[in-house]
Amino acid sequence: MKALVYAGPGRKAWQDVPDAVVQEPTDVVVRVETTTICGTDLHILQGDVPAVTEGRILGHEAVGTVVGTGSAVKGFAVGDRVLVPAITRCGRCDHCQRGMPSHCRTVGGIGWIFGHLIDGTQAELVRVPFADTSLYSVPEAVSDEQAIFLADSLPTGYEVGVLAGGVRPGNTVAVVGAGAVGLSAILTTGLWGASRVIAIDSNKFRLDKALEFGATDVVEAGAGTVEEVRTLTDGLGVDVAIEAVGYPETLRTTMALVRPGGTVANVGVHGAPVELPMQDLWIQNITLTMGLVDTVSVPTLLTMVAGGRLPAEKMGTHRFTFGQMDQAYEVFGNAAAHSALKVIIRPS
Amino acid sequence: MKALVYAGPGRKAWQDVPDAVVQEPTDVVVRVETTTICGTDLHILQGDVPAVTEGRILGHEAVGTVVGTGSAVKGFAVGDRVLVPAITRCGRCDHCQRGMPSHCRTVGGIGWIFGHLIDGTQAELVRVPFADTSLYSVPEAVSDEQAIFLADSLPTGYEVGVLAGGVRPGNTVAVVGAGAVGLSAILTTGLWGASRVIAIDSNKFRLDKALEFGATDVVEAGAGTVEEVRTLTDGLGVDVAIEAVGYPETLRTTMALVRPGGTVANVGVHGAPVELPMQDLWIQNITLTMGLVDTVSVPTLLTMVAGGRLPAEKMGTHRFTFGQMDQAYEVFGNAAAHSALKVIIRPS
Repeated sequence: MKALVYAGPGRKAWQDVPDAVVQEPTDVVVRVETTTICGTDLHILQGDVPAVTEGRILGHEAVGTVVGTGSAVKGFAVGDRVLVPAITRCGRCDHCQRGMPSHCRTVGGIGWIFGHLIDGTQAELVRVPFADTSLYSVPEAVSDEQAIFLADSLPTGYEVGVLAGGVRPGNTVAVVGAGAVGLSAILTTGLWGASRVIAIDSNKFRLDKALEFGATDVVEAGAGTVEEVRTLTDGLGVDVAIEAVGYPETLRTTMALVRPGGTVANVGVHGAPVELPMQDLWIQNITLTMGLVDTVSVPTLLTMVAGGRLPAEKMGTHRFTFGQMDQAYEVFGNAAAHSALKVIIRPS
Repeated sequence: MKALVYAGPGRKAWQDVPDAVVQEPTDVVVRVETTTICGTDLHILQGDVPAVTEGRILGHEAVGTVVGTGSAVKGFAVGDRVLVPAITRCGRCDHCQRGMPSHCRTVGGIGWIFGHLIDGTQAELVRVPFADTSLYSVPEAVSDEQAIFLADSLPTGYEVGVLAGGVRPGNTVAVVGAGAVGLSAILTTGLWGASRVIAIDSNKFRLDKALEFGATDVVEAGAGTVEEVRTLTDGLGVDVAIEAVGYPETLRTTMALVRPGGTVANVGVHGAPVELPMQDLWIQNITLTMGLVDTVSVPTLLTMVAGGRLPAEKMGTHRFTFGQMDQAYEVFGNAAAHSALKVIIRPS
C-alpha cells in the first residue's frame, strides 16, 4: 500500500510500505477513503514530538470501510463504513471507564497513538486496535466530508473548549484563535445556548468564517483586545474564554478576558512554559482547564450532524488526492495565507 | 472604644478610637467577644495590600453580640449572638445572586471589606453593613471558640480547597501546606469521603496535627515529595491536590502531584507570577481552580460543628486578651516556631 511516512524533522514521503494487517484478535483494518491533516502533524514534522520516530506513518483522522476484522471483533464487519477517531481506547482501564480514554493506560498511557506510537491514517489502509471500543459507525445521513472532522478537530473544540469551559445558557463566551479548532468551539458553543460568542483572531478570513460559524461578534487581535471584549460585555469580561492558539501570550490574554468566577478552557497545544500573574488571578475565582480530547462526544456530534444541526462540512475548504499529499501539507501548513481551514484528502 | 489600628507598614497600635455606630439602615453593630488573626493581616502589616490605608482597624473575623441595629434590619436583634464572616454581601448583585459574594459588586467589587476597605473586627465594636445578608446566628451548641474559625479559615479550606477541588468519595487527596487553612481542608475533606488524605509540610508539629485532623499519610516536604506521593497512590498521583501555601514552587509541586484528569485547587495567596510548565500540563486533562472564599458554606459548617462532626475548636492553640494583641500577633506571625495554628483573642 501507499502511505505518508515520516523521515525525520522536515521530511516525509508518500511511498510504498507493507499493507496494514490484522495483528491482534481485537484489530480491524480500515480502507481509508477520507483523511485530513491536523496541526499536530505539522508539529511532528518540525521534530517537536520525539516519540514519533522515523518510518512512522502519519495521521490520526480517517473515514473509511472495514476490510478485515480480528476474531474477537463483535461490533464491526467487513463493509462497514466507520469513523476512525484520534483516540484509541481499551475500554477496560480506569481512565477509559471514567470516560477519559485520552489517557488510556492500556494503549500507552495516552489514547492518541495513530501517527504517534503506531502507524496512522494518512495511508491506503490503517490497522485499528481495540476496534470495538474505538471505532464509530457513520450514519447514512452523514457524509464522509462531514464525518472526517469528527475524528479530532470538532470534538476537540467541543470537549476541551465548550464542555470543559462549562458553557451554559446565557453565557458570554470568547474564543481566542479562529483556526479549525477555535471555529469548532464557536460552532458547538451555540448548542449550549451562549448569548454572545466573541471570536478573536488577527486574520480577516478567519474572523469572517467565525461569523459564519456562529460568532455574534469579532475582535481583531491586538493591544486593545481585552478592553474591547470588556466593552462588549458589562465591563467585567466573559463567563467562559477558550484558548485555541497555544502561546504564552495568547493564554495570558485569554485569562484576562474572563470575569470573576469564570472559566478559561485551554485547548491550545503548548510548547513552552507560561508565566501566569497569580498575584492578580488567585483572588478572581477563575478555573483553568486543559487537556487532550477524549472523542467521547462523537456519538452526540454524529447525531447533531445527521439531524442537520451541525454543518461540519464547512470545515473543509480545500480538496486533494492521496497523490497530492505534499500540496495538501503545503496549503494546511500555510492555512492563513491560503484562506484554508481543514483539507480533505481522498484516494482520487 | 479600643481597636487595633494600622499605622503603615510594620506598625500597629491597640488604641482609643471613636465607637463603631450604625451608619446605614442595613447596619448592625456587634460587640466583639472573640476574634482572631489571619495570614492576610500579616500581609497587610508587611505593606503588601495597598488598599489598606493608615488608620484602618484590622481584622475580618469575629463572634459577638448585636448591640445596635439599623431601621431596615429584620433578621437580627440586640442581644443576638452572631458570627461576623470575612465576606460582606449585599445579596442583590449578580455575583451575590450566583453565590459568589467574594466579588460582591455593591460593597466594593470584593466581598472582603473588613480590615481592608472598612474598619475591621480586631476591636471592641464593629459595624457590619448589609447585616441581614452577611451575619450568621450562632446555634447554642456551637461555642465562640468553635464559631470563630468559621469566619474565614475553615470555609476557605473547605470552599476554595475541598469544594473547588471537587473531592468525591474514594478520591485520593494531597494537601500542600498544613497551616490553619491546609488543616481546614484536611478536616473537611473527610466529609466528602476521600479514601486517602496526604498532608505535606516541612514542619513536624503541623504534620502531627494533620494526622490528628484526619490525614491518613504525611510526607515531609522536600526534593522527594512528588515521588513519595506517587508511591502512596498507584504511581500516577492523587485525584485532587490542594495548594495552601502561596509560592511559585509550592504551586508547581502541587501541579505535579495530580494524576491525569485530576484537579489542583489553589488556596494559597500569591504575591508573584508563577511559571507553569504548560508544555507538559496541557495534555494532562488537569483543572486548576483558584479564588477567594465566599463563606456560603458557613451554615453547613455550623450544622456539622453543632452535630459534633467537625471539631473546629482544635484550630485554636493559643489564647490572648485584647490587651495582649501584640503578643498574639507575635505568636501567630511565627506560628511554626510557637507550634501555633490559630490564636483566640477575647476581651479579657
